[in-house]
Amino acid sequence: MQYGPDNPDATYVEHGYSESGFDTGEVTLNYATTGSADKPALLLVPAQANSWWSYEAAMKLLADDFEVFAVDLRGQGRSTRTPGRYTLDNMGNDLVRFISGRIRRPVIVSGLSSGGLIAAWLSAYAPRGMIRGAYYEDAPLFSSEIRPPYGQGMSQAVGPMLKLMNMYLGDQWSVGDWRGLRQALPRDLPPALRQGLVTMAGPNHSGGYLTGDEPPQSVKEYDPEWARAFWTGSATASCDQARMLAAVKVPVMFAHHFRNIDEETGRLQGAISDLQVRHVRELITQAGQRFDYKSFPEMGHNMHEIDTQLYVAVLRDWISSLAA
Amino acid sequence: MQYGPDNPDATYVEHGYSESGFDTGEVTLNYATTGSADKPALLLVPAQANSWWSYEAAMKLLADDFEVFAVDLRGQGRSTRTPGRYTLDNMGNDLVRFISGRIRRPVIVSGLSSGGLIAAWLSAYAPRGMIRGAYYEDAPLFSSEIRPPYGQGMSQAVGPMLKLMNMYLGDQWSVGDWRGLRQALPRDLPPALRQGLVTMAGPNHSGGYLTGDEPPQSVKEYDPEWARAFWTGSATASCDQARMLAAVKVPVMFAHHFRNIDEETGRLQGAISDLQVRHVRELITQAGQRFDYKSFPEMGHNMHEIDTQLYVAVLRDWISSLAA
Repeated sequence: MQYGPDNPDATYVEHGYSESGFDTGEVTLNYATTGSADKPALLLVPAQANSWWSYEAAMKLLADDFEVFAVDLRGQGRSTRTPGRYTLDNMGNDLVRFISGRIRRPVIVSGLSSGGLIAAWLSAYAPRGMIRGAYYEDAPLFSSEIRPPYGQGMSQAVGPMLKLMNMYLGDQWSVGDWRGLRQALPRDLPPALRQGLVTMAGPNHSGGYLTGDEPPQSVKEYDPEWARAFWTGSATASCDQARMLAAVKVPVMFAHHFRNIDEETGRLQGAISDLQVRHVRELITQAGQRFDYKSFPEMGHNMHEIDTQLYVAVLRDWISSLAA
Repeated sequence: MQYGPDNPDATYVEHGYSESGFDTGEVTLNYATTGSADKPALLLVPAQANSWWSYEAAMKLLADDFEVFAVDLRGQGRSTRTPGRYTLDNMGNDLVRFISGRIRRPVIVSGLSSGGLIAAWLSAYAPRGMIRGAYYEDAPLFSSEIRPPYGQGMSQAVGPMLKLMNMYLGDQWSVGDWRGLRQALPRDLPPALRQGLVTMAGPNHSGGYLTGDEPPQSVKEYDPEWARAFWTGSATASCDQARMLAAVKVPVMFAHHFRNIDEETGRLQGAISDLQVRHVRELITQAGQRFDYKSFPEMGHNMHEIDTQLYVAVLRDWISSLAA
C-alpha cells in the first residue's frame, strides 16, 4: 500500500479538530487550531512519524489558556510531500512562513524529537521577535548528526531503525513492504537499539514499535523518505547543531526523557545523552539565554501522549515563568 | 591576508550609494537602494564572487523607473559569513525575509549566475504574490548541479576553478594564498575551462580572471567557502533544479550569454549550454509560465557590468511587457 496524500482514503482518519491548509508558496502545511486569539499563541511540532494529532489530547488541556496551533511538517500527515527537500532548514523556514502568514504574532514553540530540532532551529534562526521561547521535548540534538561534536551520532543512536524503515517502506511508500520491515527489525536492528526503542515507546505500546499487522496510523501518515534524509544526513546537512545552539535568541526549556548508554556497545538508548544535553545547556547559556531543564529518566520519548497531564503541567509552568 | 567583515579596512571600499544592514534573524544582509517607492520594486542579486555594487552602474540607469534594491547574499560583500550554511535554500529564504521585512511589496528579481539561481529559486519557492517576475541572467541551471539530469555538471563546467579558489584561499580566507592560486590556475585548470573563463570575463578583464598582484575587489569581498559549497555540492543539495523549475509560478526571462561545448573534451565553456536552456524552457513552460529568452552568444558572463546599457534595455523591455 502506498500511503500518503495521493491515497487519502487509505491513509487518513477523522480527528476531533478540523484541519486546514496553509500555502507557504512551496508546500501546503496541514494544521489544526483551538483556543482563542486573545490568549498567548503556542505552536506544537510533532515528532518524526507523528502527525499534528499526536497533540490532540494536549490541545484539549491547553485550549483554555492558549491559542494552540499543531502542524504537520512537510512529509508528515496531510502536508505536501517534497522528495529530495526534507531538511531542517526547509522545515524551519516553512514554519517561519506559517507563523508570519497564519499566526501573525509572537509564539511559544514546543516540539518533540525531530520536531524539537525544529523548535531549536526556530529559537536560533527565526526572525527576531517571532519566537517567545522554545520547549525542546526530548530533542535528539547532536545524536541526529552524522558527525556530532559530542557523543553518539546517527549511526550509534536511532539510525539503523531509520535505515530499515526507509529500505522496506521506500520514499513516498514506493516499496511498502510492511511485513518485510517487521521481519527485519528483530533480525537486523542492533539489540541495544531494539531494547531502547521499547523503553522509548512507553507503556502505550506494549511490545514496542511497529509490531502490528499493519502500520500504526501515525506511520501511515509519514513519508518514509524522512527516515532516509535523517539516516544519510541530508536532513541535517548545512545545519551544524553546535553553531545553531550558539545562535539561540530566546529562553529554552529542555525536557529530557529516558536515556541510557549501553555498556557493551556504547550505543545511545533514548534520544539524547546526559553528556550531549550538558553541551546543549552550555551553548545556549553562553549565547546569553536562559536554559531550564527537567529530567524524566523513566519517561518514554513522547511524554505529550504518554502522560499528557504532566507534559501540559511542565509546559504551562515554564511558560508562566517567562516574561509576557 | 584574511579578507572579510572581520577585517573591514583591508577589505572594503566606498561606493556611490550608501549601504544598510537588514537583520533576517540569522544574518545581516548588506544592501543599497535607490529610486522611489512609488515605482515598481526591483531586487538585484549578484553573482558568486561579486557584491551588490556590481550593479552600481545599472542602478543609476534604473533609478528613475524603479525602486531598486541590490543585496549582498550571505558570504558576499559586507553580509554575514555563515560557515557550513551556504545553500540555495538558505540564501533564497534570506531574500524572502528581506522582501517581506524591508521591501514589503511584490518585486521583480534579477540575478546573475549564482544570483540567477537564487532568482530561479524565488520564482519557484517564494510565498505566493511576493515575486512578479524573474530575470535569470546567464544562470548555471543544471551545470551547477553535481548530478544534473541534462548536460555538463559542476565537474565539467566551472567546478575545477571553484575547487582551486577554495583550496588556495580557504574558507573565510583561512589560507589566503593568492600567489599560489595564480600559479595554480594556468597549471591545474583544464585548458578548455581556462579558455572559457577568459571569454566569460569579457573585454573588461584583459587576460582573464584573477591575474593581478592582489585579488580583485570583488573577490576580496567574497567568502571562498562559497566555492567549496558549490564544488562539493553542499550549496545545491536538497534543491533539485528540475523539480525547482517545475514549480516556477511567475514569468521568466532568460538571458543566455557566451557558451560553447569544447569539441575535444565535451566540457562546457560558459554558464549553461543550449541543451540545458531548452530543458529550462520546457520545465517552466510546462509549469504554465511564460518563458522569454534572449541569446547573446558573444556576450561575457556579466552583461550588467560589461554592457550595462544593453542589460538595462533588455530588462526594462521585458518588465514593461509584464502585467502591472
